[in-house]
Formats: sequence, C-alpha cells, structure tokens
Amino acid sequence: MLPEIQTPAVLVDIGVAESNIRRFQDYADSHGLKVRPHIKTHKLPALAEMQLDAGAVGITCQKVSEAEAMVAGSGRLRDVLITYNILGEDKIDALRALAQRTKLSVVADNAVIVDGLSAGFTTADEPLTVLVECNTGADRCGVETPAAAAELAARIAASSGLLFGGLMTYPPVGGAERAQAFLGEAKALIEAKGIAVPVISSGGSPDMMKAHQVPVVTEHRPGTYIYNDRSLVARGVCGWEDCALTVLATVVSVPAPNRAIIDAGSKVLTSDLLGLTGHGHVLGRPDITIDQLSEEHGRLVGDGDIGLTVGQRLRIVPNHACVVTNMVDAVQIVRDGSFVATWPVAARGKVI
Amino acid sequence: MLPEIQTPAVLVDIGVAESNIRRFQDYADSHGLKVRPHIKTHKLPALAEMQLDAGAVGITCQKVSEAEAMVAGSGRLRDVLITYNILGEDKIDALRALAQRTKLSVVADNAVIVDGLSAGFTTADEPLTVLVECNTGADRCGVETPAAAAELAARIAASSGLLFGGLMTYPPVGGAERAQAFLGEAKALIEAKGIAVPVISSGGSPDMMKAHQVPVVTEHRPGTYIYNDRSLVARGVCGWEDCALTVLATVVSVPAPNRAIIDAGSKVLTSDLLGLTGHGHVLGRPDITIDQLSEEHGRLVGDGDIGLTVGQRLRIVPNHACVVTNMVDAVQIVRDGSFVATWPVAARGKVI
Repeated sequence: MLPEIQTPAVLVDIGVAESNIRRFQDYADSHGLKVRPHIKTHKLPALAEMQLDAGAVGITCQKVSEAEAMVAGSGRLRDVLITYNILGEDKIDALRALAQRTKLSVVADNAVIVDGLSAGFTTADEPLTVLVECNTGADRCGVETPAAAAELAARIAASSGLLFGGLMTYPPVGGAERAQAFLGEAKALIEAKGIAVPVISSGGSPDMMKAHQVPVVTEHRPGTYIYNDRSLVARGVCGWEDCALTVLATVVSVPAPNRAIIDAGSKVLTSDLLGLTGHGHVLGRPDITIDQLSEEHGRLVGDGDIGLTVGQRLRIVPNHACVVTNMVDAVQIVRDGSFVATWPVAARGKVI
Repeated sequence: MLPEIQTPAVLVDIGVAESNIRRFQDYADSHGLKVRPHIKTHKLPALAEMQLDAGAVGITCQKVSEAEAMVAGSGRLRDVLITYNILGEDKIDALRALAQRTKLSVVADNAVIVDGLSAGFTTADEPLTVLVECNTGADRCGVETPAAAAELAARIAASSGLLFGGLMTYPPVGGAERAQAFLGEAKALIEAKGIAVPVISSGGSPDMMKAHQVPVVTEHRPGTYIYNDRSLVARGVCGWEDCALTVLATVVSVPAPNRAIIDAGSKVLTSDLLGLTGHGHVLGRPDITIDQLSEEHGRLVGDGDIGLTVGQRLRIVPNHACVVTNMVDAVQIVRDGSFVATWPVAARGKVI
C-alpha cells in the first residue's frame, strides 16, 4: 500500500475532501447560508482555495499566526475572520500588518479586548471589524447574555479604529432554540440602539446540516467536515468512506497473537478521545481496538488472533482529524488510492 | 511575568533541569549504573550535551529521524541507541548513513526486523549493534520469554552485518523481581550459548530511583526526569519546584467568576492525561482545575470566584512534559525567573 510513502504518514484523499466540501456548500446554498470554513482542520492554503472555489465567502482562523501563515501561502485568501480574543501589543501589531494584506475581522467577549484592539487600530489606515462572541451553551468564551452582547456591541461601535461586525458563537451546544433565542434577542437589542448587525456566525461540523434551524444565523464555520473523522462517524454524520484524512502506519511488532504494535503513536494520532474509547479506527478491521498509545507506539488488540504480520501496512481513521494535521510537517496527498504529492502543512504549530 | 515572551509559550528553567540531571546521575554513579538519557523529553542537542557533561554514556532516541536531528545538532553526540524496531529500506538506508557519523545501536523483538537490518548492514563498513527488546510487564513491544530472547540473540549474533549488543526493556512495570528474573534468565541462556551480554538497559523516570533493585541492569534510560511534570509530582517522584518545563499562558476571557479561558489549549498542553484528572497544574493555584481543552483554549474553573483577570499570565505544569516539547517549534529558556534565549526544538515532529 503506497510504497513510496514512509510511515507513519498522514494521508489526505483529495477526492474525498472535494466531495465533503461540495456536500456542505450545496446544503448552505440551498438555505441561503454563507460558508466560512475553519482552516484549523487542514492548515493548507491550497485546500482553503478549494473551499473558496466551491463558494466559501472567506476563511476562519483561530490565532493570528495561523492567519499570517494562510495569507502568506495564498494570494487568494482575502477575507479572514479570527475567532479569538486577541490581546497584547505584539499580537495587535501583527494584526495591523495583516490587515494591510487581507480583509480582517476578529471577535471579542470583553471590554479589555475591545479597548486593546481600539488602541492598536486608532491610527490604522482602515478600521478593524470586531464581532461579539456569544455563549450559547458551550461555556467556553462568549458574553453570557443578550444584554451583555448589546453592551459590548455598543462599546465596539463607539471605539475609534473599530467597526462592529456582528455576532459569533461556537458551537450552539444548547440546541437550535437556545441559540436562536440568544442571538435573536441580542440582534434586536443592538438594532434598537441604531447599530446594524451585518453578520451572525455559527460554527461546528457535528450539527452543520442543522444550521438552518437557527434562522438568524447568516454564515457557518465548519472545520472538520472537509476531512471528517472517527468522532463524526460515531455521531452518524458521515461514513468511513467520507473520511479524507487517514494515518498510514506499519506493523513493527506482533509480540502475541492478539496484540500488534504500529509505528504511529500519540505523536501522530494524538491522545484526543472526544468521548470515544480507543485511539482510532483501523479501516477494514472493526474487530481491532487501538487500546493504548505511547509517543511512537500504537497498541492494537483483539479478542483472539488478529492475524497481523510485521511489515503490514494499515490505514487508521483518527478520533479527531484537526489535531492530527497539527502533528506533522507535511501531509501526503492521494487520489483514488495513488500518491499525488507531499504538501507542507503551512499553518502547523501556529499557536501565537 | 516575562513580558518579552509572547504566549502561549513553553518555558524551560535551565537551572532546574541541571539539578534534575545531577540528581539522577549522582544516584546512578553511586550504584555503578550507566545513564543513557532518552532525548524524547527535550529534543534539544544542547540539553543532551549537558547530560553527557554530567556523566551520561550516550543518548537514547525513539526514531531514526529523531536521531538524525540530534546528531546533526551536536558534534558531541557520538553514542546513540534507537530503542525501536526499524523496518523498511528507506529507514535502514538512513540508519546506515547515520552509522557513519555516530556509534549506533538499535533494538529488535522479532526475526523480520533482524533480517532486514542484516540485509542492510551486510555491506556496511561496520556492523550494527542490535539489542533484544524484552517484555518485562508493559505488554508493548518485546519478546515474551527469556527463551525467545536467547533465540533472537543467537539469530543476531549469527547474522552478517550485525553484532549482538545485549538486552533492553521498557519499563519494568511488573516490578523489580519480575524484571530481574526475566533479564537474569535471558542473560544466562544467552551466555550458555557462548554469546556475551555486554549491556542490559532499562528505562523510565517514575521508578528510576529504584533501578538498582534490578541488579542485572547495567544502564538506565530516563527521559522525563530532566523536566519532570504533573504525572511525576502525582506519583510523589518530585515536587512542583523540580518541574523545569512550564507553559506560560495568558487569560483572554473571564466569562463568569468561576471560569476563565487561557490562550493555551491542546495544541500546547496536549490531551495526554496519564491517568490524571484535568489538563495541568496552575502554579500557585491548587484550587483551580483545567477541566477542558480545545485546540487553542484552556478552560479554568473553580468552586467559587477564582479571581482571575483578562491579561493575567499564569504558569502551568503540564500532565506530560515530553509531548508538550513536541508541540512547539521553539522553547524559551529561563533561569531564575529571567528570559535567557529561544532554542529551536531540533528533533520536534520526527516520527519517521
């Protein structure tokens, strides 16, 4: 299997990725919803271009350095939303430089962030667009009430160097009704102040096909959907054949009939469980469990003789595709089972 | 706190690392045990040199590409053990090239590996030293019985291009008695065939101060000990003050009095739990739990008002230091609380 590729390797089936992009874009188009994919899943400028070609309005990044790497990697990424509270002079300087090269929006959920952005952009050529992040159930970041959203929106609108851009949430865990209620009320409160709410942005792949159930939302930011993974198969969102990212590994040891060791451990598959048991799915071998990872070893076990031999290659669908992308300097692009090219992961490791 | 460093960042307190190196070397010296540190924890040629200066006989790496990066990064790393079953023509070619630059040993736990190494080294200038990996309780790699170890040792000794180098185990989980019994019996069986057993190598930081309880062992390969981490504090092996690696993070959101969000998520701290609850220890704040990580967010919670403010910096001891090293392109070296230098992580991401 793919003898030209050394293992362990991260494979991306580009045909499957194309289908995955198309499926969600068609859904979104049919509901009048804009698509702004989160590039955290692939971190590849070329795949972001494929998403734009399919109809995406722009991209989402999570950190400033990630956005820098993407914009540096493609002259066509000209509309970037960074869904993060950005703080500190160095980062805001970087943001100002990036805003010279692309249409840029960020988010904020508190006044310290807004005031820092305003201080940095007061003397900039163009104002920075800032959306208010809202907590609709995930209990991560986000203002807690529609009234707080309206208050922060007004602060943004009144801040020199800033433009209020709308509302953002991730993910609408509380369900469609709760997200619709929160975002709808926040929108009404903000509009009552005479401030327009041009964008309401939601995110997440697990519920992306239900995005229309929150009608106040104008755009959606799916990430994992381009590759899919074991967590999304477990949720019934896709099948194994829709998983574009797999890990190619080699059996290096078969110490016992019911146990084999592969050359991919947590440095490739990661320890992310996402609520699952085991560390990935061996394609074609649902009887095998990857029950333990150390950094460079994956342990495969089964009830009886699992019949693996040293040197055999396996393809594994990881629990969580996005984090696997971040573990390797390059991915191997395949199509219809054949090797196509090696692509460096341009935005890997960009945590600043 | 360290305003010249952007967050999130991985800090290494070099003074603490020096003390950690010294402590184990003194213990090993007092028991006549050789030290061959595993560089997976730091992946830094300069720290490997510090370990040699303290008295280490050489280093341990887990993959060929990791060894290549270390040897390329220091002219002084001239004795390298790769504790892995190495398979495939490309990797064995790389091994042969590496053997031109450093004294090299590898391990094997099955005949396929031995035969592949022999085929690759038959025409090499010097034979390759191969140790037999033994399973003394971890149930990962390793031959299962002393008799199997002896059989594989004889195969290595009879293979052209190879030298039998001894026995290797990781970690002796079954306890000192079991490891001593397995390794002692294997040694006797091999010597009965007229084959010398020059090295018996054990590993692991958790039980490193008990290495002398397996008297047949001649060298130990601790990794994590140079940095320590939350898992080793939890096992009572060290205190927080002995943790050389910490993650510097900034609070970016305080959505509720009992909840704050930092700018370090699983892309820095990783999802490794090592049996613990929570994702790290906030230094000076034992009342806070890091209860959830997404890729770029860490969620800190407490029972009541945790009193954090946006912009505040925190230092976190991760659950597992080795995997954190692998997440960043560079670490920030500090001493006595002051910034010293930025060091690229030379052997990061080397999974081949």
